[in-house]
Amino acid sequence: MAITAVKVILTCPGRNYTLVKIETDQGVYGVGDGTLNGNEATVASMLQHMGELIIGHDEDRVGDIWQLLYHWGYWRNGPIFKSALSAIDIALWDIKGKKAGMPVYQLLGGKAREGAMVYGHAHGKDHVEVEDSVRSFMERGYKAIRAQPGPYGGAGMLARSSPRRPDLPPTDTFEPTPYMLQVAPLFDHLRNTVGLEIELLHDVHEQLTPIQAARVAKDLEPYRLFYLEDALRPEYLEGFRLIRAQSTTALAIGEIITAREQYLMLFREQLIDYIRCAPIHIGGITEAYKMMTLAEPYQIKSAFHGAADIGPIGQAAAVSVDVVIPNFGVQEWTRFPDQTYEVIPGAYEMRDGYAYPNETPGIGLDIREDLAAKYPYNPAWMPLVRRADGTVHVY
Amino acid sequence: MAITAVKVILTCPGRNYTLVKIETDQGVYGVGDGTLNGNEATVASMLQHMGELIIGHDEDRVGDIWQLLYHWGYWRNGPIFKSALSAIDIALWDIKGKKAGMPVYQLLGGKAREGAMVYGHAHGKDHVEVEDSVRSFMERGYKAIRAQPGPYGGAGMLARSSPRRPDLPPTDTFEPTPYMLQVAPLFDHLRNTVGLEIELLHDVHEQLTPIQAARVAKDLEPYRLFYLEDALRPEYLEGFRLIRAQSTTALAIGEIITAREQYLMLFREQLIDYIRCAPIHIGGITEAYKMMTLAEPYQIKSAFHGAADIGPIGQAAAVSVDVVIPNFGVQEWTRFPDQTYEVIPGAYEMRDGYAYPNETPGIGLDIREDLAAKYPYNPAWMPLVRRADGTVHVY
Amino acid sequence: MAITAVKVILTCPGRNYTLVKIETDQGVYGVGDGTLNGNEATVASMLQHMGELIIGHDEDRVGDIWQLLYHWGYWRNGPIFKSALSAIDIALWDIKGKKAGMPVYQLLGGKAREGAMVYGHAHGKDHVEVEDSVRSFMERGYKAIRAQPGPYGGAGMLARSSPRRPDLPPTDTFEPTPYMLQVAPLFDHLRNTVGLEIELLHDVHEQLTPIQAARVAKDLEPYRLFYLEDALRPEYLEGFRLIRAQSTTALAIGEIITAREQYLMLFREQLIDYIRCAPIHIGGITEAYKMMTLAEPYQIKSAFHGAADIGPIGQAAAVSVDVVIPNFGVQEWTRFPDQTYEVIPGAYEMRDGYAYPNETPGIGLDIREDLAAKYPYNPAWMPLVRRADGTVHVY
Amino acid sequence: MAITAVKVILTCPGRNYTLVKIETDQGVYGVGDGTLNGNEATVASMLQHMGELIIGHDEDRVGDIWQLLYHWGYWRNGPIFKSALSAIDIALWDIKGKKAGMPVYQLLGGKAREGAMVYGHAHGKDHVEVEDSVRSFMERGYKAIRAQPGPYGGAGMLARSSPRRPDLPPTDTFEPTPYMLQVAPLFDHLRNTVGLEIELLHDVHEQLTPIQAARVAKDLEPYRLFYLEDALRPEYLEGFRLIRAQSTTALAIGEIITAREQYLMLFREQLIDYIRCAPIHIGGITEAYKMMTLAEPYQIKSAFHGAADIGPIGQAAAVSVDVVIPNFGVQEWTRFPDQTYEVIPGAYEMRDGYAYPNETPGIGLDIREDLAAKYPYNPAWMPLVRRADGTVHVY
Repeated sequence: MAITAVKVILTCPGRNYTLVKIETDQGVYGVGDGTLNGNEATVASMLQHMGELIIGHDEDRVGDIWQLLYHWGYWRNGPIFKSALSAIDIALWDIKGKKAGMPVYQLLGGKAREGAMVYGHAHGKDHVEVEDSVRSFMERGYKAIRAQPGPYGGAGMLARSSPRRPDLPPTDTFEPTPYMLQVAPLFDHLRNTVGLEIELLHDVHEQLTPIQAARVAKDLEPYRLFYLEDALRPEYLEGFRLIRAQSTTALAIGEIITAREQYLMLFREQLIDYIRCAPIHIGGITEAYKMMTLAEPYQIKSAFHGAADIGPIGQAAAVSVDVVIPNFGVQEWTRFPDQTYEVIPGAYEMRDGYAYPNETPGIGLDIREDLAAKYPYNPAWMPLVRRADGTVHVY
Repeated sequence: MAITAVKVILTCPGRNYTLVKIETDQGVYGVGDGTLNGNEATVASMLQHMGELIIGHDEDRVGDIWQLLYHWGYWRNGPIFKSALSAIDIALWDIKGKKAGMPVYQLLGGKAREGAMVYGHAHGKDHVEVEDSVRSFMERGYKAIRAQPGPYGGAGMLARSSPRRPDLPPTDTFEPTPYMLQVAPLFDHLRNTVGLEIELLHDVHEQLTPIQAARVAKDLEPYRLFYLEDALRPEYLEGFRLIRAQSTTALAIGEIITAREQYLMLFREQLIDYIRCAPIHIGGITEAYKMMTLAEPYQIKSAFHGAADIGPIGQAAAVSVDVVIPNFGVQEWTRFPDQTYEVIPGAYEMRDGYAYPNETPGIGLDIREDLAAKYPYNPAWMPLVRRADGTVHVY
Repeated sequence: MAITAVKVILTCPGRNYTLVKIETDQGVYGVGDGTLNGNEATVASMLQHMGELIIGHDEDRVGDIWQLLYHWGYWRNGPIFKSALSAIDIALWDIKGKKAGMPVYQLLGGKAREGAMVYGHAHGKDHVEVEDSVRSFMERGYKAIRAQPGPYGGAGMLARSSPRRPDLPPTDTFEPTPYMLQVAPLFDHLRNTVGLEIELLHDVHEQLTPIQAARVAKDLEPYRLFYLEDALRPEYLEGFRLIRAQSTTALAIGEIITAREQYLMLFREQLIDYIRCAPIHIGGITEAYKMMTLAEPYQIKSAFHGAADIGPIGQAAAVSVDVVIPNFGVQEWTRFPDQTYEVIPGAYEMRDGYAYPNETPGIGLDIREDLAAKYPYNPAWMPLVRRADGTVHVY
Repeated sequence: MAITAVKVILTCPGRNYTLVKIETDQGVYGVGDGTLNGNEATVASMLQHMGELIIGHDEDRVGDIWQLLYHWGYWRNGPIFKSALSAIDIALWDIKGKKAGMPVYQLLGGKAREGAMVYGHAHGKDHVEVEDSVRSFMERGYKAIRAQPGPYGGAGMLARSSPRRPDLPPTDTFEPTPYMLQVAPLFDHLRNTVGLEIELLHDVHEQLTPIQAARVAKDLEPYRLFYLEDALRPEYLEGFRLIRAQSTTALAIGEIITAREQYLMLFREQLIDYIRCAPIHIGGITEAYKMMTLAEPYQIKSAFHGAADIGPIGQAAAVSVDVVIPNFGVQEWTRFPDQTYEVIPGAYEMRDGYAYPNETPGIGLDIREDLAAKYPYNPAWMPLVRRADGTVHVY
């Protein structure tokens, strides 16, 4: 009937995670994930502070606690705040599922499909290496594969300089013109070799201006992408109008958009086709279900973020929503380091290109606090990118 | 020529503040403020992490460091992130001013006015008490006064329940109808007693729906407010169209809007008349100057947030921009607890209703680290508000 | 503490320049440039009149003087007025930099990049000549080159008739169809010979109607221009919608747009990608920094005008802003006649395709009044253009 | 058959005027006026330069010369340039009229009305003085009268400080709140005393922000103004949407708008009811006739600027267009100093509230060059205005 503790667990079993464990006076507890790449300790600090407010509250009132925490924030919103809120929301749904004796997806209305189609990340330093990488995913049963030329970040990555200290990030150099010249030929190669039926995706990593992005979307049109991701920075989304006017390439964005109000214009004008937010960054299972409801009338589908920078509980929260909503699109998929699976047992399974939720009541995963303590937080930073003339460039 | 340390100072000399001190290899240092009400420790955590990235960088490159930190964030934006960025930006401008031997306002182009008109907060439990409070500000030389009926939050505040623990916030009960019924009569009383020439403001504290807010703006039209503040929540700003269509009451919002892209539509459609952001929450002096430039062609003016929940360095950053920009409107003003002035000496002066920057090179304030250490951080939370039926309500 | 003199210097060391020298009672003086091609004496007349108003004013109040002169104008705006205002603004920033002991770019927030990429002007009477011209720029290290077919103004220039008096301009004859037929083949030739990686630009010189311009932008799309310049006259900018709808060719305009309000629609609708204004024609360093801020949220970049019709101080003002703003694109570059460098010593350097500001405090250039007096103003006029049937045509 | 000279005459018979006399090889000459308040010498400098280009051209080709000069300008537009162009255009129409033996209005299609209704300027330091001033105009037959409270600029004018030198302008202090509080009571007084039938106008002098202007337009709605003038600065005209939404007060603007493209949006959205441009500032008789054609489909009428800061030839050019166009509204009217009528004989007459063109061929006025030389140009500046806090304020 009441929350008794909100424990924050910051751990690094191969990667940093910000986890939460909410305990109740009935002995039932829930686990949540608020991992935000490069900001794990800051989210933990926020969770510590936020958690105090809900002790004593009825754990059954998931929505009430959501609203309470959201509005308590005053300077609400922003990824730090939303990740902390998400961790609590997921943990509360875990508790509710356990109390009902049902997996979380059942509480959301039950399965609309057997599993959630996933995509993996193929890359390579030249066309043939990317092709080989794509084929290896196909062999493992993937139905959808993201293909990137060159090193991480794309073909425009020209050089890397060492950081001042080995634990700090290096600085990469990127130029848009070499990137833009290489991306269409890569997909020309891939479609000529692996065919048209496998779903291919590509991520621009926000590196282009609107007119450049429109150009790339147009250049790639013959290669029939499942979608082109993050063609623009998320700050000024009206730029999608320009891209939209120039091609029929499907578009996705949203990995770093954590507030629903930022999506509304994109929905109303149908400027995108897939949204890339993740339940653990936008407000948990509660908000992910609602976000997909807001997208539904505009025929916009889900493509929840799921790189290795979120944890298994975050992945599970995503898949729990994926199998339920009518407008599911695709789920980004990753494997975690082995130690992660020890510390957070129960991770959802992926077979033959589809992810499947556990049948365990609740979210279906646990946190081994004793093991987590063995892997202390290891501060890390997102990479730095500059242009050839030294200008800071968004990655 | 290089930053050698980014020291984060979390202190509570009467209130919590998140401060930063940036040291350079030339012995010059700068001070910054990233205080965010109820989130001081979380901003400090972010600053600790962010600060590592700029050690070794050239302190003269304020804009480059701004962009580096902004894009490094990846999940950039949000008030925690922006407050940390602001603290660093202010400290770097402090250094630049010291190196130039000029107060920061000189670097921004010099004074466009002698001082910045401020407003104070009058309130009282009935019309006469509010009138008395307004008169006391007038006697002290204030030219603009915000008047609020009832307890903090307005006339609709009906009851207060105790928190579970004395250090946690109480829960207030608010209803819009009683609030709406009392606000116009209050201003009718005030205009009949204190006259039409003193500038009066009123803050709705985001408590109304769009149609209720439109009603209040129309009800208050005869009383010629300087502006009506926070008539709506900042999530869905199109609601201002509804208010705008119904009256000529001037409107202000923005205290919790920390990203420029959220303002653009308000600017373009001229839906508001004043923006309430604070330099310490939107990205420092660099971004505050730019934000006001973005507003300038639309004849939208500044009304920087300046309640007691920011510190004297944040206040100084605001006034440094206020005296420079062509589209200055008004500056919210507060006095800080006495201990604050000891820990952070050099605070800007307010005389006869106008605030004036220091003539000391840089931002003109200092941080006494020894004294700061005597006042340890004291966790605090923003208030909780519910409706009479128990619904969570924004404050 | 006070301006004591505003000296206007009209001189022709190889070309006409309108310069200003502002003296103060502290012995510090500043230099500015308000050169406006073909209007040098008229700007000088305006400066003479305008200068009287600021004698006795505090030279530190750059923004205040800007606003005073702007609003004094009443019939403010227009290139004559704005060029005079620019000259004064640049001189005041020069003074401020000298007083701070810092180059002007430091006062604007410091370097965001090491140098500013420039472009030069390649041309020739046939494809091979243009190719040779492009190659000569590549050999000198240029990363971006504007390529024009035919004589100045493009391939459509058919004939030239002599003026009535040798000091008056000749009249050229232009037809759009021959121009339109030759431009795409030129770029086809260039891309086949010099490759895709060198950045190529092209200037339409406002010679086309909207549908013709849309056609050229589409014809040129395969050749991946860095941008297409002045595709339309600047009077009716909605015409860019038509161009925009038909291709992903990047667009630039603005060389003769001197008021920010004329740009706002282009920004809001993202109809262009680069703005071509010059600090010396829009209101100096103050306004150039603000203009680029207004463009920033829309991801529109700078491409400041920098042909030989501005002087070295104007060039320096442009580069001082270029190296600071986040949204720098490219800088048009020119060499001046040798005598110009004598009269105005200290010009910024260009090396290997990048321009670099001086490290001298202030703007870093000077005016030798004694030498200037040796080169008296020599009235000149912009060229006249007509169509084959005699109709006046914009050049 | 050819222009032989373009003589520029700068003279001050009571006020400064910039005049032009174009001579032809047939002995016929024409006179024009390009007076621009405070910029008379700069327009003269422009005319001197511009005039060279048309010597030898056929004086009959008025439209060709207009286009030639317009496009020659390259940095065309702006009030200096347009005033010079206007002076030439008027002089060429004067020549054509003389050659045809007809007054200019006949060449434009002949009279559409007998005379042009004018308005005069009533003002006074209190309500009764303004009323007396209005009555004196009524007694002289005026059908329309502009009424201003307080000193020049309105009731918000609080103080005047002396200039540094007696020939420089003083600085006035203005505040919007006192102005706004006094304007509606004045018109309440006037309508109660002089009745509803006399047409009353009021000029805001661009002193308000959009929401303040909307307020004043709403406050004045009961007093049925003929129009409210210059409610906003002309820079960002979208602000008229805000005013338009709040009242049925008729609106006028345009005294300082000299380019047709700036009006187009106002026309298309019918945001104003009258345009206040003057033929001598927008491009002469040619452009004034076209401007009113562009306004015609939107039912927007003329209200040509006609204060004492233009000369009798400019006044005549305005009335020549007024009596011809279908969408004439009203003509601002002034008397000039007596010496002006000597130097520029032939001024149009105003009787019983209507202005009438001369029946003399051409524009009907002349310039006595010998007398003009007796009144040398006397540099003057427009007034300076600041707010109480020292901020520069537009007048």
